[in-house]
Amino acid sequence: MIRVGIVGATGYSGVELIRLLSGHPQVRIERLYSSSAEGTELASVFPHLEQIALPTLMSIDPAAMAQETDVVFLAAPAGVSKELTPQLLAAGGRVIDLSGDFRLLSGELYRAWYGKEPAADEHLAQAVYGLNEWNQEQVKRARLVANPGCYPTAALLGLLPLAKSGWVAPNSWIIDAKSGVSGAGRGVALGVHYSEVNENVSAYKVGRHQHTPEIEQELSRQTGIETIIQFTPHLIPMTRGILVTAYGQLTKPVDMSELQHLYESTYADKPFVRVRQPGSHPRTKEVYGSNYCDIALHLDERTGRVIVLSVIDNVVKGAAGQAVQNMNTMFGLEETAGLSLTPVYP
Amino acid sequence: MIRVGIVGATGYSGVELIRLLSGHPQVRIERLYSSSAEGTELASVFPHLEQIALPTLMSIDPAAMAQETDVVFLAAPAGVSKELTPQLLAAGGRVIDLSGDFRLLSGELYRAWYGKEPAADEHLAQAVYGLNEWNQEQVKRARLVANPGCYPTAALLGLLPLAKSGWVAPNSWIIDAKSGVSGAGRGVALGVHYSEVNENVSAYKVGRHQHTPEIEQELSRQTGIETIIQFTPHLIPMTRGILVTAYGQLTKPVDMSELQHLYESTYADKPFVRVRQPGSHPRTKEVYGSNYCDIALHLDERTGRVIVLSVIDNVVKGAAGQAVQNMNTMFGLEETAGLSLTPVYP
Amino acid sequence: MIRVGIVGATGYSGVELIRLLSGHPQVRIERLYSSSAEGTELASVFPHLEQIALPTLMSIDPAAMAQETDVVFLAAPAGVSKELTPQLLAAGGRVIDLSGDFRLLSGELYRAWYGKEPAADEHLAQAVYGLNEWNQEQVKRARLVANPGCYPTAALLGLLPLAKSGWVAPNSWIIDAKSGVSGAGRGVALGVHYSEVNENVSAYKVGRHQHTPEIEQELSRQTGIETIIQFTPHLIPMTRGILVTAYGQLTKPVDMSELQHLYESTYADKPFVRVRQPGSHPRTKEVYGSNYCDIALHLDERTGRVIVLSVIDNVVKGAAGQAVQNMNTMFGLEETAGLSLTPVYP
Amino acid sequence: MIRVGIVGATGYSGVELIRLLSGHPQVRIERLYSSSAEGTELASVFPHLEQIALPTLMSIDPAAMAQETDVVFLAAPAGVSKELTPQLLAAGGRVIDLSGDFRLLSGELYRAWYGKEPAADEHLAQAVYGLNEWNQEQVKRARLVANPGCYPTAALLGLLPLAKSGWVAPNSWIIDAKSGVSGAGRGVALGVHYSEVNENVSAYKVGRHQHTPEIEQELSRQTGIETIIQFTPHLIPMTRGILVTAYGQLTKPVDMSELQHLYESTYADKPFVRVRQPGSHPRTKEVYGSNYCDIALHLDERTGRVIVLSVIDNVVKGAAGQAVQNMNTMFGLEETAGLSLTPVYP
Repeated sequence: MIRVGIVGATGYSGVELIRLLSGHPQVRIERLYSSSAEGTELASVFPHLEQIALPTLMSIDPAAMAQETDVVFLAAPAGVSKELTPQLLAAGGRVIDLSGDFRLLSGELYRAWYGKEPAADEHLAQAVYGLNEWNQEQVKRARLVANPGCYPTAALLGLLPLAKSGWVAPNSWIIDAKSGVSGAGRGVALGVHYSEVNENVSAYKVGRHQHTPEIEQELSRQTGIETIIQFTPHLIPMTRGILVTAYGQLTKPVDMSELQHLYESTYADKPFVRVRQPGSHPRTKEVYGSNYCDIALHLDERTGRVIVLSVIDNVVKGAAGQAVQNMNTMFGLEETAGLSLTPVYP
Repeated sequence: MIRVGIVGATGYSGVELIRLLSGHPQVRIERLYSSSAEGTELASVFPHLEQIALPTLMSIDPAAMAQETDVVFLAAPAGVSKELTPQLLAAGGRVIDLSGDFRLLSGELYRAWYGKEPAADEHLAQAVYGLNEWNQEQVKRARLVANPGCYPTAALLGLLPLAKSGWVAPNSWIIDAKSGVSGAGRGVALGVHYSEVNENVSAYKVGRHQHTPEIEQELSRQTGIETIIQFTPHLIPMTRGILVTAYGQLTKPVDMSELQHLYESTYADKPFVRVRQPGSHPRTKEVYGSNYCDIALHLDERTGRVIVLSVIDNVVKGAAGQAVQNMNTMFGLEETAGLSLTPVYP
Repeated sequence: MIRVGIVGATGYSGVELIRLLSGHPQVRIERLYSSSAEGTELASVFPHLEQIALPTLMSIDPAAMAQETDVVFLAAPAGVSKELTPQLLAAGGRVIDLSGDFRLLSGELYRAWYGKEPAADEHLAQAVYGLNEWNQEQVKRARLVANPGCYPTAALLGLLPLAKSGWVAPNSWIIDAKSGVSGAGRGVALGVHYSEVNENVSAYKVGRHQHTPEIEQELSRQTGIETIIQFTPHLIPMTRGILVTAYGQLTKPVDMSELQHLYESTYADKPFVRVRQPGSHPRTKEVYGSNYCDIALHLDERTGRVIVLSVIDNVVKGAAGQAVQNMNTMFGLEETAGLSLTPVYP
Repeated sequence: MIRVGIVGATGYSGVELIRLLSGHPQVRIERLYSSSAEGTELASVFPHLEQIALPTLMSIDPAAMAQETDVVFLAAPAGVSKELTPQLLAAGGRVIDLSGDFRLLSGELYRAWYGKEPAADEHLAQAVYGLNEWNQEQVKRARLVANPGCYPTAALLGLLPLAKSGWVAPNSWIIDAKSGVSGAGRGVALGVHYSEVNENVSAYKVGRHQHTPEIEQELSRQTGIETIIQFTPHLIPMTRGILVTAYGQLTKPVDMSELQHLYESTYADKPFVRVRQPGSHPRTKEVYGSNYCDIALHLDERTGRVIVLSVIDNVVKGAAGQAVQNMNTMFGLEETAGLSLTPVYP
């Protein structure tokens, strides 16, 4: 049994990790850590977890954590991981970090987009970007996995086959993304107040969302072409789900069957990516509670553009589920272990 | 492996049966039947099921069905089962009926509340009311289980311990229930139009909902006292979940610890009933996607009333989940087989 | 023109007062006051108000306020009004208080249910309970109106005709209320976090909500019979609207037409109460954005109970709209001035 | 008083016309027409309208309609108006058509995008496209106004200043639109079933929505440059509201103040267009129930694109409100008569 520890168990990603890991046949949830809620029983905060036997929340002590666990999931806000991860690694631990602290290779970019001090370059260099479908080999050998952001997961899985094909002008990509509110986490704020969000839709952080350089970095890395994209997130009155609608300008004529074949062959052996019928319109509810990413392709001959639709559950494939998938890969397990979740519909 | 067949796979209960049964270790979904959609692949209607290998929809033929399956789940509208069930039983089949056709012992009551012709008395007499926590012994020997209605499940699990205790005046029970929209099924109608339901709440069928006699029958049967209750359903702008708020007039002074003990001891060995802390307020989201029924008790000394709060996921514990639980009991399996579902939160 | 001042303009009741008063032909919004946001332009907080010329937020100075305005609306949290109102009255001002500070005649009850120190008895004695349809004469002469709570408004308008008729056992009333989230105000808290409220329903404060004694006081006062009621509020995943479902035990046989006549005659000259057809099910959306209270009656002959359904928009009739209605009465204007709002549907 | 008639009063646009026109000081709702519900009282379908005195629904007779009314609003599905409008015009009537039947000048385009037979060219030629802010002079003289579609209204008001400026490459426009469900009308269908729409988001009709040629036609007409755009509509789990997020490639360097000035000066005397602060993110709730279109501009110097955000209430500015605005213009009234609606917030 893999002994896992979780930091940030009182957040939405943390509680979802518990849902997934408590049903994982090769895992034991050994420790739950918290900097603020030491001594708390999680079921007192989340009564829906009452039937699961869980350890009491413990304080954070990197040396002990590396000892007591085989891997630590960090589901804490940006900035926490930066401090904790180097200590865990130094103590011999393995880390899957769900924050943005180790996703960007360039500390300068982190500073510019996150408005915080980055981790040291030597630590950034240790991280493997855990977009499992594309970096599985590196993840296998990783001691530190930077679990991708929710938007980048949906965007990159949707765009990479085409980006690598060279059929789309790299800097033409416009990624218009729609997210449920859980992506903002469990912290209270006016921006997540029910009466402010319900029966309402808006864009936010136009041109300055911190997932922009993450998408650009991975597109550039996978294609070898420095890529600048347009990314706009929107807040949708729903709890879970991300839909990415991405527009790319074709550089040569392609037909639908080529496009479809490109995606089907790329993801043929990837159990969590489902390439949908040409011209279909995947809905976020169709992946609700599951680790799937459903992708559909549209070719608009009038405009010479391809439109990629990509949906995930931001809490699963966009966070906890992908983290478990990465753990499976790191420990040589079946990729789907603990993740055979049929979407909850309706 | 138990070979199951499902009638009504294109409805919400049917599709939820597939979610649950496809993950059940001792079950094979052998057949899907439909009177109208013969030849259809279910994934073309429900793309979220694409990864599950499922049989093509077949036409209904009771003799063949009894042959090809060990048990048939009937997830069809009221009226269909009445015709089909006797033929399935006659052909040697076993049936779990999710409709209301075999819940009421009295054909006359059925006629009065459903406004349709009832099944024949001889067939009604064969049915076991599948409120598993209370009728498990009978379910074990049943060939026909009438799976309880969604409201009666939440209401009866919440009320029965107190009703049997004699501490509450039987006819004083007022059951004010709140349900998500999925309880109305997948059929289109103005009453389930998004723009009519969203940002809206209303009562419906006050004093005349067909689940009223079902609740009364089981309260009466379990207590031996003919009981008349007040039941009011409400439509809530959400997809899944039922909350029952039930008010009973105490006939003698009790204290909270007695009440709590009554419930905890009654349900001590019932894995799907979670008696919550005294004075807590269970929320439907805390059982979302799971087979749990969470119950909390409140004692109002000012008024001499007990208030019982009871929540379920109407599609799981109120329909498909309870049906699988009944199948487990009928076939001598672990009660929780295929039903170890942690609520999806948030 | 009546010069009005508003304290608490950055809350939901305050901003709704502005919507209503800015369209009122005999009113000028003279001053907006705030203890914390002095100097702010309201449109910077609420861009939807940009087209309305509004005064800059000013600090609170009771003497000046009484001078500069003809009436002050206090839309501040419980506890603020208690301090401010006596000073405003002493300075010669008139006050319509939307908080709970002056609704209960008994300071002791306030202390017990609100958990705070009450206003002095001499000030409590000055307040008129502003349930306009029932206390219009007193409101005409009031210098201090305690604007009713949202739940009490829906409950009392629904219950009073029957309560006064003597046809219902006074202590049998069970009031099961369902409210949208805006009733909790604009303050941030986990309880109003979108991801916690959406796709969720729960009861709260069972047996101990502070609107309970308010309803009891007014029922008792109007009927002359000391009355104890059962009141349970529920949080519904919607922004606006309250539905009250109230159950009363009949003390004698009545028929539907008597009931209907009782309500129709009681409210014949009340423009904001609409008695709906017998047996109908009013929906909150049908009063959305308006000052109406729609009421429907159900008689359940099986149980001997009457069920009263009553819906309001909690922000309008349950707060700002009723406050404007009271202002109209205090100043001798048409009751409906500034309140001719057709519900926004859908 | 202007005598108005409404065809299609039982739909959402029809019922909103009644809300607006019943409060219009210079209008009398003279007739309601229906092809299917003759003899019905509208309040029996929409109890929220009970307090408004309305004529009984009458059958459709063009000659009588032209006689009895000064203007007829056609709020019927596409295809109905095509038949009725020529008869009304021939009988001397005036028409404001809310359907798509007279928006496209080219019958061929209509046939291609609507999949139906178009109106005759001679009748198409009579129609004035009622984007009031841009075509006010023509609307003044019109006998037939084709009221713009909901998406085109939000898109065109957002794009036209820039499109005319020449600062954006015409064919670079990508319009990603998000709409509430009421835009689909009141007809029942699986696509508007609450359980299918709630907690869900999806694109639909990618590359083939019938509002595409309408937007292109008006951009082309106003700029004199044949323009092809990319348009993608999305269904959002809310009732009212449209947000357009539009991306345009700048053809020359501009700065934010130029952009802002362009919009502010263009709409300086347009009471229903509110140009918001640079870099703001308008939310649909901020125009809820009102006739406003709020527009905000973003300049992304990294990508050389301008992003235009534009929000309307699809039922008001996107349908009934704009229709009333056009009526005001046709009859020489104040543009804002009957339309001084403050957004309902929250």
